[in-house]
Amino acid sequence: MQKKVKIFNDPVYGFISVPVGIVLEIIEHPFFQRLRRISQLGLTSYVYPGALHTRFHHALGAYHLMTRAVEVLRNKGVDISEIEAEAVCIAILLHDVGHGPFSHALEHTIIDIHHEEMSILFMEQLNQHFKGQLQLAITIFKGTYSRKFLHQLVSGQLDMDRLDYLSRDSFFTGVTEGSVGHNRLIQMLNVFEGELVVEEKGIYSVEHFLIARRLMYWQVYLHKTVLSAEQMLIKTLQRAKQLVQEGTRIESFGNLNYFLNQSFTDIDKKNIKNLPNHFAMLDDIDIIASLKQWTIHGDLILSYLAKCILHRKLFKIRLQNTVITPSDIAAAEALIKQQFSQLSEAEIRYWVFTGKESNRTYNKKKDDIKILMKNGNVRSFSESADYELQTKIISRYYICFPKSF
Amino acid sequence: MQKKVKIFNDPVYGFISVPVGIVLEIIEHPFFQRLRRISQLGLTSYVYPGALHTRFHHALGAYHLMTRAVEVLRNKGVDISEIEAEAVCIAILLHDVGHGPFSHALEHTIIDIHHEEMSILFMEQLNQHFKGQLQLAITIFKGTYSRKFLHQLVSGQLDMDRLDYLSRDSFFTGVTEGSVGHNRLIQMLNVFEGELVVEEKGIYSVEHFLIARRLMYWQVYLHKTVLSAEQMLIKTLQRAKQLVQEGTRIESFGNLNYFLNQSFTDIDKKNIKNLPNHFAMLDDIDIIASLKQWTIHGDLILSYLAKCILHRKLFKIRLQNTVITPSDIAAAEALIKQQFSQLSEAEIRYWVFTGKESNRTYNKKKDDIKILMKNGNVRSFSESADYELQTKIISRYYICFPKSF
Amino acid sequence: MQKKVKIFNDPVYGFISVPVGIVLEIIEHPFFQRLRRISQLGLTSYVYPGALHTRFHHALGAYHLMTRAVEVLRNKGVDISEIEAEAVCIAILLHDVGHGPFSHALEHTIIDIHHEEMSILFMEQLNQHFKGQLQLAITIFKGTYSRKFLHQLVSGQLDMDRLDYLSRDSFFTGVTEGSVGHNRLIQMLNVFEGELVVEEKGIYSVEHFLIARRLMYWQVYLHKTVLSAEQMLIKTLQRAKQLVQEGTRIESFGNLNYFLNQSFTDIDKKNIKNLPNHFAMLDDIDIIASLKQWTIHGDLILSYLAKCILHRKLFKIRLQNTVITPSDIAAAEALIKQQFSQLSEAEIRYWVFTGKESNRTYNKKKDDIKILMKNGNVRSFSESADYELQTKIISRYYICFPKSF
Amino acid sequence: MQKKVKIFNDPVYGFISVPVGIVLEIIEHPFFQRLRRISQLGLTSYVYPGALHTRFHHALGAYHLMTRAVEVLRNKGVDISEIEAEAVCIAILLHDVGHGPFSHALEHTIIDIHHEEMSILFMEQLNQHFKGQLQLAITIFKGTYSRKFLHQLVSGQLDMDRLDYLSRDSFFTGVTEGSVGHNRLIQMLNVFEGELVVEEKGIYSVEHFLIARRLMYWQVYLHKTVLSAEQMLIKTLQRAKQLVQEGTRIESFGNLNYFLNQSFTDIDKKNIKNLPNHFAMLDDIDIIASLKQWTIHGDLILSYLAKCILHRKLFKIRLQNTVITPSDIAAAEALIKQQFSQLSEAEIRYWVFTGKESNRTYNKKKDDIKILMKNGNVRSFSESADYELQTKIISRYYICFPKSF
Repeated sequence: MQKKVKIFNDPVYGFISVPVGIVLEIIEHPFFQRLRRISQLGLTSYVYPGALHTRFHHALGAYHLMTRAVEVLRNKGVDISEIEAEAVCIAILLHDVGHGPFSHALEHTIIDIHHEEMSILFMEQLNQHFKGQLQLAITIFKGTYSRKFLHQLVSGQLDMDRLDYLSRDSFFTGVTEGSVGHNRLIQMLNVFEGELVVEEKGIYSVEHFLIARRLMYWQVYLHKTVLSAEQMLIKTLQRAKQLVQEGTRIESFGNLNYFLNQSFTDIDKKNIKNLPNHFAMLDDIDIIASLKQWTIHGDLILSYLAKCILHRKLFKIRLQNTVITPSDIAAAEALIKQQFSQLSEAEIRYWVFTGKESNRTYNKKKDDIKILMKNGNVRSFSESADYELQTKIISRYYICFPKSF
Repeated sequence: MQKKVKIFNDPVYGFISVPVGIVLEIIEHPFFQRLRRISQLGLTSYVYPGALHTRFHHALGAYHLMTRAVEVLRNKGVDISEIEAEAVCIAILLHDVGHGPFSHALEHTIIDIHHEEMSILFMEQLNQHFKGQLQLAITIFKGTYSRKFLHQLVSGQLDMDRLDYLSRDSFFTGVTEGSVGHNRLIQMLNVFEGELVVEEKGIYSVEHFLIARRLMYWQVYLHKTVLSAEQMLIKTLQRAKQLVQEGTRIESFGNLNYFLNQSFTDIDKKNIKNLPNHFAMLDDIDIIASLKQWTIHGDLILSYLAKCILHRKLFKIRLQNTVITPSDIAAAEALIKQQFSQLSEAEIRYWVFTGKESNRTYNKKKDDIKILMKNGNVRSFSESADYELQTKIISRYYICFPKSF
Repeated sequence: MQKKVKIFNDPVYGFISVPVGIVLEIIEHPFFQRLRRISQLGLTSYVYPGALHTRFHHALGAYHLMTRAVEVLRNKGVDISEIEAEAVCIAILLHDVGHGPFSHALEHTIIDIHHEEMSILFMEQLNQHFKGQLQLAITIFKGTYSRKFLHQLVSGQLDMDRLDYLSRDSFFTGVTEGSVGHNRLIQMLNVFEGELVVEEKGIYSVEHFLIARRLMYWQVYLHKTVLSAEQMLIKTLQRAKQLVQEGTRIESFGNLNYFLNQSFTDIDKKNIKNLPNHFAMLDDIDIIASLKQWTIHGDLILSYLAKCILHRKLFKIRLQNTVITPSDIAAAEALIKQQFSQLSEAEIRYWVFTGKESNRTYNKKKDDIKILMKNGNVRSFSESADYELQTKIISRYYICFPKSF
Repeated sequence: MQKKVKIFNDPVYGFISVPVGIVLEIIEHPFFQRLRRISQLGLTSYVYPGALHTRFHHALGAYHLMTRAVEVLRNKGVDISEIEAEAVCIAILLHDVGHGPFSHALEHTIIDIHHEEMSILFMEQLNQHFKGQLQLAITIFKGTYSRKFLHQLVSGQLDMDRLDYLSRDSFFTGVTEGSVGHNRLIQMLNVFEGELVVEEKGIYSVEHFLIARRLMYWQVYLHKTVLSAEQMLIKTLQRAKQLVQEGTRIESFGNLNYFLNQSFTDIDKKNIKNLPNHFAMLDDIDIIASLKQWTIHGDLILSYLAKCILHRKLFKIRLQNTVITPSDIAAAEALIKQQFSQLSEAEIRYWVFTGKESNRTYNKKKDDIKILMKNGNVRSFSESADYELQTKIISRYYICFPKSF
C-alpha cells in the first residue's frame, strides 16, 4: 500500500503527487528540466503579465490530470493495468518535451521539424537512457498501441494536454472565463469499444469547453498585440538567419548559432538521432539573450526589431476579416521609405508584413467527440448538439508596421 | 470628497461599499431584509449543496456591479449625473424585491402576479415611505426614462442582474466554468446614441457569456433533479390549495394561509396597493414550515409529497427531447393504482406529472446586443458573430413519478 | 478495482466522491438530511451574507478531508484497514449529527444536552437501523478504540472537523485570510506510536493554523454584531419558555412546542433513547417560523425581540476588555424604564443583558500537538515553537441593549 | 469626469487601470520594461514552479493597491490632493526599479549598492527625462515630504509593497494560506496626526498579517531548497568574479561582463549618476545565459556549479537551529577532497559553504504599527495585542554541499 511520493506545489491544482521511481527520474533529467526555460505562451506576457508559466509546469499539470482520468475510468470499470497507467502518464509528461524556444512562434523558423516529431526523438533517447522503460509510453504516444483510448487521453479532442493548458493559461492570464471545468469533464469520461467517450450528461460541458477554447484563442493566443510581438520575433530571427547566410558576422547566443548556421530543409537522416542533444541546449534564454546583443548590431533592420521587442515598442497591427490589399501594404511601405530611403524593397518586408490567423471551433471529421448516450448508443457530438456547431474556419488577416520612429 | 460608507462582505467580489444615505436605508428596510429569507435558487441546493445564497445577496451584488458599470461608462465620457447614478443603483437593488418564496417554481402557484409587477408595487410603497426619493429609479426600472441605456443596465441582455446571478450562482454551486467574466464584460460596455453597446473587441466575451449562461441553464437551473424537486413542490402547493378550497382544514404556516385562501384570478384592483404588505410577510420559511406540518396531515397525497421533499426522496424524472406520450403516462399511473387503489384519476396526477422546459440561447429580435465596431458603426451581435447563433428554442419534456413506495 | 461512486458538488473542494454503500445510505437517511436545515453559523449571515452553508455541507466536507488523510497516511506506510477507513469516515460524517437549530447559540437553551452526547444517541439509533454497521465508527468517535490516531482525526487539535469548518467558513464568509491550507496540513500528518503527529517541516503551518483560527474567532465567530444577534435569539427563546411555564399561550412552531414545554434538567434516563426522534424533527425552520409568529404576540418583550431579530434591527453591543460594571447596566436600564414604565426589573433583563466571550489560541495541556522531528523524536508543539505561544484565555465582556425605539 | 485609462490584466486583482499620462509613460519607459526580465522570487521557482512572476508585475500590483488605499483614506476624510495621489502612486510604482537580477540573492555580489539607493538613481534619471514630473514622488519615496503617512504607504510596516508581494507570492506559489487579506487591511487604514494608523477592529488582521508573512518567510522565501539554490548562484558569481580578477578569460554574457570587471568598493562618486545606464542593461537573462556558457568552461569549480544550478542538481542543505560546527564542515570537505584531490582549501569553499538566515516577526521599535482605538487614542500594536508578540530574531544555520558526484 505504501507509495513514496514527491509533492510539487501548483497554484492551479494544489498539490501534484509524483511517485518515486521512473516518473520522478524523467522529471529530474536535464531534458525535462530544460522545459523550465521554455515558456508556455512566449510573448503573451506582453499582454497578460502573469502568463510566464512554462512547459515544465504544463507537463506536470497534464500528468496530474492523467492520474485523475485513470482513476475515474478505473472506478467506472475500465481495466487499466499498472503498466498501462504508468505508460500513459509518461506519455503525457513528455508530450511537449520536443518544444523549442517560443515554440509556436518559432517552430518553423529555427528548425523545420514539428515539435511532436522532436518529442519522439527525445523520448527515444530517454528510452535508451532508461533502458527501455519508456517503450509502451512511446507506443501510446505514437498511437500504435492497441487500446486507442490511451492515445486519445494524450492526444485527442479532449486530451489532458488541452484540459491542462486551457486551465493553466486561464489561471495565469487571469482570463477566468476561459476555465474549462477540467474536473467535471474528466468525471464524465468513459470508454466504449476501446475509444474515449463522454457520457451524455456531459454534453453541455463539451460545448462549453469548445467555446471556452475559442474564447482563449481570440482573447489570448491570437490576441492582436501578441500576434504583432510574435511576428516581430519571427522577422528578427529570419533577418538574423539571412545575415548569417550572407556572411555577416552576428553574435548570437549559445546554441542558437548552431541552428542559424544550418539549413534544415534536407536534414541528414542519419544524424537526426543526434539532433536532441543540440536542441536540448536551446531555450528561451538563447533567444532573448541574442535579442539583447542584437540591439547594438550594425544592421539597422536587425537592431531596430530587437530593440522594439525588448522595450515593448510593438508594431501597430491591424486585424481584419478581409485580406490585406496590396495598396494597404504600399501605403505602409511608403511611410518607411520616406524616412529610410536606404532600405531595399526586400528589407522593408521585415518592417511591414502581413499574415493570416485561423481558428476552427470544431471540425466534424478531425475532432469528432463521441457521446455515450444513456441508452447505450454512441453518437458523434455534432449530431447530439442542439444546433449546427460552427465548423468553418474563421480567418483574420493582419498587417504590421512600426508605429512611429 | 468624503463619503461615509458601510462595507458588506461578499465572497464573490470581496467588499461591497454602500454609501450612508438612501441606498443604505432601503437595504435596512424590512421589505429588503425579507430577501434574506428568499433563496436565489430554491431547491437547487438539493443538487448543489452550496447554493443557499439569497436574493438579498444577489441584489447587493448586482448593485455593486452597477456602481462599477457607472464608473466605467463615465471614464469613457458618458455623462451620468449623480442623481441618475443613484437612481439606476436603486433600480437594480430593488429589481427582485417582489420575488416570493421559491420564486421561479412557485411564481404562479401562490399568486398570479409576475414578480416584476410585484417589484413595482413594492417600489411604489417604498417611494411613499421615502418621500419620493425613488421616483427616478422607478421610471428607469419601468423603462420610461428618456435615457434608454440606464434601463438596459437594469434589464437587458447584458444587464447587471444577469452578470451578478451568473457569477454568483457559479460561485455557490461550484460550477466554476459558468463564470462569465463580469469584469471584462463591464469594461467593454459603452453607450451609443443613448443605447448600451459592447465594444467590438468584446465580441468573444459576449459569445462566451451566452454559452456560459446556456451551460448554467442545463447544468444548474434546469438540472433534472432540481426540476423534479421543484415540480413536486408545485404539486404540493396545488394539492394544499385544492384541499383548502374543498373545505379540508390544513394547517399551513403563517401568511401562506392568507394566500391559499384567496383566488387571485380577479384581484380587486383597488386593494392591489395593499398586496405588498401581505406578500412581504411571506418567504421560504412559510413554505418549508408548512411542508413540515403537512408530513403528518391526513391527506395521503399531501403528506406523501411533503415527506418526499423534506427527506429528499425525490421522484424519478425522465427528461427527453420528445413529447411524453399518453402511454408513458398510463404506464406510470398503472404502477401507482396497483398499490393505491383508493386514489382517483385526478389524485394520481399529483404523483405522476409531465412538463416541458425550454431555453433559447439567443433571440435575435428580443435579445439583440449591439456591437460598437472600431469604425464607429453599430451592428447587431447576430450579424457580427462568425456563425449562425442558435436562435431556436430548445425544449425538453419530462415525466416524474415516485421511485418506489 | 471498480467502485461505483456518487459525486457531490462542492465549491470548496470541487467534487466529493462517496462510494455507493453504507456511507451513501447514511447520507440519504432523514437524520442526516435534516442537517440541510441546520445552518453551520446561525445568524452569522447577518454580518457575512454568504455564510448560509449548513452542517450537511460541513459534514460532507469533513468526510472528504478524512478520505484524503487516510490516503496520505497509507502512502506513508501507516496500516489502516478497509474497515477502519470506512469507520473513521462514518465517524466524521456523523460527528455533528446531534446539533440542534442555531446550535452554538441555542445549545443549552432548548435542551440541556451537549451536542456530542446527542450525536452519540443519533449514531446508536442509526447503528440499530443499519444492523450494527456503525459499531466501529461509534467506538472511534467515543475515543475507546485502541488506535488513538483514528479518534484524533475525528476530534483533536488538528482534526478534519476543524480543517473543514475553518476552510468552509472562510470560503463562504469571504474572509479569505482565514484559510488554513488544509492540503498542506494533511500532507504533513503522520502517526507515531499510535498517535497523530505533524512532521517537523509542518511547524509553521501549524502555527499559521492556530492564528488563522484565532482570526476567525474574533473576526467571524465572535464578531460583535453576531454576538448581539445570537444573544437576542437566546433571550427570545428564554422569554418564550418563561411565558409557556407561566401558562401564557404562545404559538410556537412544530416540534419547538415539545421542547418549550419540557424541563430537561432531570431527563428521564429511560426515555433518552427516544429523544433523537423528537430532536430530529427540530431544525432552524422551527425557530425562524416561531419568530415570525411571535412578532405579533401580545407580550411586548417577546414580540419586540422577535421583530428586531427578523428585521435585523440588532441591539447595540459594546465589547470591551473589562467587566461591565453595574453602573453601565443601570444606565442602559434607566433608558428603557423611561419609555416602558410598565416593565418589571426582571423583564428589562431581556432587553439589557451582559455576557462574556473567551478564546484561547492554544492550551498546552489540552490541545497539545505533537511534532515528529526529523531525527525521529517527538516533541510537543509548544516546545518546538520559536516563542511562547499564547496560552492564556482572552476574554471580552459585552453589554447589549436596544439602539432606540 | 472622463479619464482615459489603459487596462492591465492581473490574475491577482482582476484588472489594473492606469490613467493615460505620466504614470503610463513611466511604465512604457525601458527602465520600467526591464523589470519584466527581473523575476520577483529568483530561483524560488525551483521549489514553487508557478513563482515566475516579475518585479514588473509586482510594481503594477503595488500601484493598484495604492490607488485603493488613497480612495479609502479619502472616503474617511483624509485630504489627499490630486498631485499627492499621483506622486505616491509613482513612488510605489518605482520603489523596486533599482533591483538587479536575482535581486535578493545577488544584491551584494554583482554590485555593492542597496537596491533602494539604486532606485533613487533611476528615479532621478527618469525625473530628468520627464522634466521634473517625478519630484514629489522622489521626496515621498525618500521620506522627506511633510506628510509622513504618504511615505509610510510606500515603505512601512503595512505598506503597499508588502501587501502586494505577500498576496502575489502567495498566489503564484500556491501557498494560499499566506494570503494576507489586503482588501480588509486597506479598508482599515486611517491617518492620525499625519501618520498611518490601523483602526482598532483591524487588530486581528494585523496580527494575522504578521503571522502570514512569517509563514511565507519560512515556507517560501527561506525554504531550504531555495536557500541552497541561491547560495550556489552566489558562489558561482563569486567564482566568476575571482577568475576574472585572476585574469582567466571567461565568457560572461552581455553587461554582466562590465560588472564582473569592476570593483565597486570605491565607486567613483562622479560617475554614479551614469550607473543606471549600465545597470539598466542587466537582468536575469544575463545571469542564466552566463550560467549556460559556464557549463562548458574549463574551470571545474565554475562549470560544476553552473551545471548543477541549470539542471537543478541542487546541493544538499542541512538547516538547523544551532551554529554549524567546524567538524561538520571538515566532514563535508573531506568527502570532496577524497574525490577531487587537486582542489585547494579555498576552492573547496565554493562547494562546501555555511550560512545563516534570520527573521523577526515583529520589531517593536522599528516596525511599530499604530492602532487607532475606538476612543480616539492611538496605541502601539505591541501594547494592544493580547500577548507578547514575538520580537526576538529567529536564526537558522545551514551547511550546503554536493549530494554526490
